[in-house]
Amino acid sequence: MELDPTVSNPDAYRTVFENDRVRVLEYRDQPGHRTTPHHHPDSVLYTVSSFRRRLSTDDQQLEVELDAGQVRWLPDQVHWGENIGDTETRTILVELKEPRPDGTTAPPVLGPLS
Amino acid sequence: MELDPTVSNPDAYRTVFENDRVRVLEYRDQPGHRTTPHHHPDSVLYTVSSFRRRLSTDDQQLEVELDAGQVRWLPDQVHWGENIGDTETRTILVELKEPRPDGTTAPPVLGPLS
Repeated sequence: MELDPTVSNPDAYRTVFENDRVRVLEYRDQPGHRTTPHHHPDSVLYTVSSFRRRLSTDDQQLEVELDAGQVRWLPDQVHWGENIGDTETRTILVELKEPRPDGTTAPPVLGPLS
Repeated sequence: MELDPTVSNPDAYRTVFENDRVRVLEYRDQPGHRTTPHHHPDSVLYTVSSFRRRLSTDDQQLEVELDAGQVRWLPDQVHWGENIGDTETRTILVELKEPRPDGTTAPPVLGPLS
């Protein structure tokens, strides 16, 4: 399965900048929209809109409600999401392309961290 | 001289998130505001507002005009800035803490790159 979100969910994810160190994605959807499973490397999330979403893995679910203008850390993870609010979701994701310098892998944490 | 912008220009720069890999700053100023010289590591710039600024080094000047909602790459550099527009400047800067993996240093390029 293709886990790059720009390939798995091109209706919602769009690359707005890319170089050797980062790839920056814009995410936009409408209420009721669902993504298929996809992978995020360690990323910084910036919320352009407020939104309410349900994030899922095979064995976890998490409801996330954020205001516009917030910054969160999204650790490396595979998940899928659903817009369970009544507004558009619009975010910017700054993906870090380099592996973690300490060689660790991501702990199994679902969703964005403050 | 202290080149960390949160130390040199704490009236304009505020840390909104930090971990081992990134530091995320919010920048806000008003028309006519000037910063003192400060250092940016390789960073992703997101424009929350539109703005017009003059960026300077000892031997270069650059006028930058950007709309809100833009993403730019700001390569490692020391500069200072002046809000030469008639609106607030408001941006988010995602600073990369790790050195470039290829060991190169920044080319002498002033200002954000698209």
